[in-house]
Amino acid sequence: MDIRKVMKPRSIAVVGVSDRKGSFGNYAAQNALRGKLGEKVYFVHPKRQELLGKKCYPCISDLPEAVDCVVLCTPSSTIIPLMEEAGKKGIGGAVVFASGFSEERDEAGKKLEKRLIEVAKTYDMAVIGPNCLGLMNNVDQVMMWGLDTKFEFNDNTGVGVVGQSGFIIKHLSEAGFGMSYMASTGNGNIVTIEDVLLFYAQEDAVSVIAVYLEGIKKPEIFENALKTAAEKRKPFIVLKSGRSKKGAAATASHTGNLAGDSATYDAIFEKFGVVVAEDFADLIALTRMFTVLKGTLAEKGTLASLNLSGGETAICADICEKYGLVHPDFDANVKKAVMELLPPFATPNNPLDATTALMYNVEGNKKIVKALLESDEIGIITLGINIGLGKHLVVENQINAACAAVEESSNKKPIFAVSSFEGTRNRDYLEQLERHGIVMPSGGEKAYRQIAQLVKFSQYDPSKCTLSFAYPSVDNAAKQTVALSEYDSKEAIKEAGITISKQAVVTTKEELKTVLEKEFSFPVVLKVSSADILHKTDAGGVKLSIQSQQEALQAFDEIMVACKNYMPDAVIDGVLVQEMAPKGIEIIIGISNDALFGPMVLVGLGGVFVEIFKDVALYPAPMNKDEALGMLKKLKAYKLLTGYRGSKPADVDALAETIVKISDYAAKHRDTLKELDLNPVFVYEEGRGLSVVDALLIQYQS
Amino acid sequence: MDIRKVMKPRSIAVVGVSDRKGSFGNYAAQNALRGKLGEKVYFVHPKRQELLGKKCYPCISDLPEAVDCVVLCTPSSTIIPLMEEAGKKGIGGAVVFASGFSEERDEAGKKLEKRLIEVAKTYDMAVIGPNCLGLMNNVDQVMMWGLDTKFEFNDNTGVGVVGQSGFIIKHLSEAGFGMSYMASTGNGNIVTIEDVLLFYAQEDAVSVIAVYLEGIKKPEIFENALKTAAEKRKPFIVLKSGRSKKGAAATASHTGNLAGDSATYDAIFEKFGVVVAEDFADLIALTRMFTVLKGTLAEKGTLASLNLSGGETAICADICEKYGLVHPDFDANVKKAVMELLPPFATPNNPLDATTALMYNVEGNKKIVKALLESDEIGIITLGINIGLGKHLVVENQINAACAAVEESSNKKPIFAVSSFEGTRNRDYLEQLERHGIVMPSGGEKAYRQIAQLVKFSQYDPSKCTLSFAYPSVDNAAKQTVALSEYDSKEAIKEAGITISKQAVVTTKEELKTVLEKEFSFPVVLKVSSADILHKTDAGGVKLSIQSQQEALQAFDEIMVACKNYMPDAVIDGVLVQEMAPKGIEIIIGISNDALFGPMVLVGLGGVFVEIFKDVALYPAPMNKDEALGMLKKLKAYKLLTGYRGSKPADVDALAETIVKISDYAAKHRDTLKELDLNPVFVYEEGRGLSVVDALLIQYQS
Repeated sequence: MDIRKVMKPRSIAVVGVSDRKGSFGNYAAQNALRGKLGEKVYFVHPKRQELLGKKCYPCISDLPEAVDCVVLCTPSSTIIPLMEEAGKKGIGGAVVFASGFSEERDEAGKKLEKRLIEVAKTYDMAVIGPNCLGLMNNVDQVMMWGLDTKFEFNDNTGVGVVGQSGFIIKHLSEAGFGMSYMASTGNGNIVTIEDVLLFYAQEDAVSVIAVYLEGIKKPEIFENALKTAAEKRKPFIVLKSGRSKKGAAATASHTGNLAGDSATYDAIFEKFGVVVAEDFADLIALTRMFTVLKGTLAEKGTLASLNLSGGETAICADICEKYGLVHPDFDANVKKAVMELLPPFATPNNPLDATTALMYNVEGNKKIVKALLESDEIGIITLGINIGLGKHLVVENQINAACAAVEESSNKKPIFAVSSFEGTRNRDYLEQLERHGIVMPSGGEKAYRQIAQLVKFSQYDPSKCTLSFAYPSVDNAAKQTVALSEYDSKEAIKEAGITISKQAVVTTKEELKTVLEKEFSFPVVLKVSSADILHKTDAGGVKLSIQSQQEALQAFDEIMVACKNYMPDAVIDGVLVQEMAPKGIEIIIGISNDALFGPMVLVGLGGVFVEIFKDVALYPAPMNKDEALGMLKKLKAYKLLTGYRGSKPADVDALAETIVKISDYAAKHRDTLKELDLNPVFVYEEGRGLSVVDALLIQYQS
Repeated sequence: MDIRKVMKPRSIAVVGVSDRKGSFGNYAAQNALRGKLGEKVYFVHPKRQELLGKKCYPCISDLPEAVDCVVLCTPSSTIIPLMEEAGKKGIGGAVVFASGFSEERDEAGKKLEKRLIEVAKTYDMAVIGPNCLGLMNNVDQVMMWGLDTKFEFNDNTGVGVVGQSGFIIKHLSEAGFGMSYMASTGNGNIVTIEDVLLFYAQEDAVSVIAVYLEGIKKPEIFENALKTAAEKRKPFIVLKSGRSKKGAAATASHTGNLAGDSATYDAIFEKFGVVVAEDFADLIALTRMFTVLKGTLAEKGTLASLNLSGGETAICADICEKYGLVHPDFDANVKKAVMELLPPFATPNNPLDATTALMYNVEGNKKIVKALLESDEIGIITLGINIGLGKHLVVENQINAACAAVEESSNKKPIFAVSSFEGTRNRDYLEQLERHGIVMPSGGEKAYRQIAQLVKFSQYDPSKCTLSFAYPSVDNAAKQTVALSEYDSKEAIKEAGITISKQAVVTTKEELKTVLEKEFSFPVVLKVSSADILHKTDAGGVKLSIQSQQEALQAFDEIMVACKNYMPDAVIDGVLVQEMAPKGIEIIIGISNDALFGPMVLVGLGGVFVEIFKDVALYPAPMNKDEALGMLKKLKAYKLLTGYRGSKPADVDALAETIVKISDYAAKHRDTLKELDLNPVFVYEEGRGLSVVDALLIQYQS
């Protein structure tokens, strides 16, 4: 299918046009006429001769040309025959508004959607919907939208929006700033949301991508979209829903999308530098921020903040600290500009309480902003300007000062006009600010959270990340799984280049004696080897710190007796002999193979750190050493690895290398691996490496 | 001083009235005339005969009566003589706008403020300011305000606002909902912010208290204000600034207030059920919420949420889970109301995606809200209504449905109209909602955070808390401190009723032999007793697990030799002998005596839990057992105390009792105690108590 047939159609036919107010057919007909296609918009109605002054064709077959896209405004029962008619005519795209498909609880809807997918496949058609509101293309000025809208075609801002909720797309399109493309994908089984995202990532007219995401279906397309956007440094802003149990249920009944595990999505987002929004308002504000900035990023993560009141200044400082935003001291130039203009008792601190001195001194205010634009210490400037609905002299002075500074300076930095309050902003002020590239974020605390997101995006470097994940190429959902023994699990990860302690399985005491004499150094460990006995310690099947052959032979007997008592029917393969690893810092490395995104690597310090504090890092395989180190640094317990309370630093380097190897192994075996746990791994002092003490590999059976 | 002279004056004189636009004297004169005092407002000007049609008296002495309060609009240099004149006249209150006092960096301002405080004391005058914007009293309609304001006298809402920033008071007063009192306290060294808070707590006309707080000065007044408000169940909403280092610096240069430790304030707030705001917008929204609710609280913490779109529903569910808000299943009645009105494919889930079915069905929507008002399962109702500036049919339908439900139901519950977006709300809609007691919180995520604050406030029970803290009655700032030895520290806490292991200090081996024979059971511990040796273990001064007399005698010698080698000049008192406590779960109990608020109790699990994860609870002494248990339950590591991974539950009861005893001890010794650390305490299995293994008491020297 060619997605451009729906995203950038050169001709369209609205099928089922209507003059009944409030109907899809009425809205879609009116909206279609608003665009630039002119004669390339056709109307189809079985009985009407004309509507809204436009000729109606009785059916799709009668159209004078094979249009790029049909807009089907009719109920679900009519969709399949219409699609077939369009397909036969050679039409490559369709928008389907009707609900009554896979989002319904009954089987009929699901069957209907399946049939729709088949027809689309047969005729190689790109279909947006069903159960959607359609799309708008402001680049070519085409509107295929099934609802009333306040959106006006205007200058392209480069924003591409897509969402699995018509509601959010409608609100984004009416938020008062131009967008280049908007699409509501509805059930999205043919043209999926990730298809649209890839289109945006590749399309030159799109420079900022915003998405409301419930779930995805084609990981390979999603990966490509994320990778392309990351490489082109297009901000990719996502509001992901279905993070909670109830939220996931809501998305399932909404568009039939499975929300997927929230932590997995966040790990994917982390890898590709995706900007994560907290709610709809945040999605809009972040999108607007990147749009207004037009590619200006923060070269440094440092802030300078000017406020007019002490209260504002104190709160600004508090919130910035909370979000990790740093206010360095002003340099001499800035201090000079400040001291020239402030009363003698004011202190040139950052954040600055400019008192009332700057309220009416536009020139002085401008000089300070200019000095900040030229200061090497400062990455971002925030100005406390409380813009409300009405006009206000002080506000106007502040805005004029900031805009004049921007005009007079050759340096570009992100500048924010931060209001302490919520509310709709005066449109004139907003336009003036945005024309000068100055952002007006959300009010209050959220402003600084959004600024922190900008800093994070500015510091993200796609060249340092492996821009891929290892989605499985087969569907393992229905397969049986098998857990390998510790011996086999460890032999398997040898393939990954991981050194494991010497090990052997022996079935008799004679064998044990032979291997101990030939191959092993004491102390050793003996463990029962049996697929039936899961809790070896409980069964009396583990003997640690064995120092001699004699001890070992006795331990062999004790294990056999204890395990037969514990589970008389257990099939016992023998006893696993291993050289015993000295104690080190206990680490857990776990892999879980996500059906959509492939192996996800989890790292944490063993025991309560993972279990009580949930202090773990999650990241998609494969990864490079920088990324593995990044995972470790995200752990609160990381301090324990770098020399805590006088202990020597641990071999973080060896640990990171092991994580890379394990993630490569998991990526390679994406189609067969279900889970892999190295638990515990003992990490030793710097330069002394680590030991994989226990391993468990679970595979899908083919 | 009588604070009512400034808060509720029956007569005022504005001194330094002026017709110069933008001056304090001009604003204050105009504002004074707007109130109800009429003839009881006097103007004072040395030369003018009249201003704004009002007679001017040449000086304060010439006033025909001793007014309750003078409003001084003149510069700092004139304030002392004017105050003296007023004092001699018998005037009991003053408002001072001028800056140039203790907020300045130089000594002159600080001296001037000191002088002002002395004069106020001499004449027993209540003074608001200096460096303030004044106050407004909407109950008696008196305005002593030094700036222009859009505030109009109106119906009293019962809100009392006070802040250490004129900026925030100005914005709150113009936020569009009535307030009963507003005060900007400025430097606030005479009438402090806590004096105003106590006035609000006691005043019947005030039912909701909102404060922007940088710091307090009179803990006894603050305690009384908090206690009174808590007992009367008046919501006490605070935005505390100076939480960060930079923020504290900003408050210090702003009004000369020391911000104090943020965690300490939060612990105080916790004890008194204070509602904590995150920023100015949040302070306004929370204040408005409690004002609109007029005392209606959430009987249960459970939510029912109705939204019109699947996207909104999913996001609502996600955010609620994040804030711990629970959506129970609907009961049969609600389900029936929902199923009657929704299309067959909709699911009566909570949160409910009502699809588009309810957009135009006011009657059906109303029935659902009514059913929710009557449902025992539901404490709070949220309705997704996206109110913007303009009018909108769907919004209007939703509002009408909700209001009709409120009118027709005899049940009262908090109801919220939640918008997914930021922005100024349509005034008509807002008024209609608020008239029906329906709250319009902040947009998006913040709405649910505010609802979670309501739930917390609703569940707070003042009768279960010790509504006091143990502020010291002396100033210890300049005093020397002394650290007691372990022996003395432990003997001291015996007074608190805490059982400690048997201990003795011996100076010779003979003494050691005697005490071991008479009093002690093995195993014992020997530790060097010396104020000079702080790190006993490093010095070789600790011997654990001593099982016999012979071992003990040898250990004595070894300790003496090692310590003399370690620090030849150390004065060694002898050796401390203790029965050795068996190992238990390691707990730290620490007390730090805050100069303002008195002893603060810190509890955490030992080692990395405290040091790496900062998993500690802080609470002011004294406390009861419920509060001590509450502290423990706030620890993430609490799970380790209640039986983790098959281990038996620990003696949480004994631990809570020990915390109570220690906090009582600390409260009793508030004037002499500096720090007390029980570290570690070993807690044993349920019923087996605990052992205080080490203790360190630091006292102020008198």
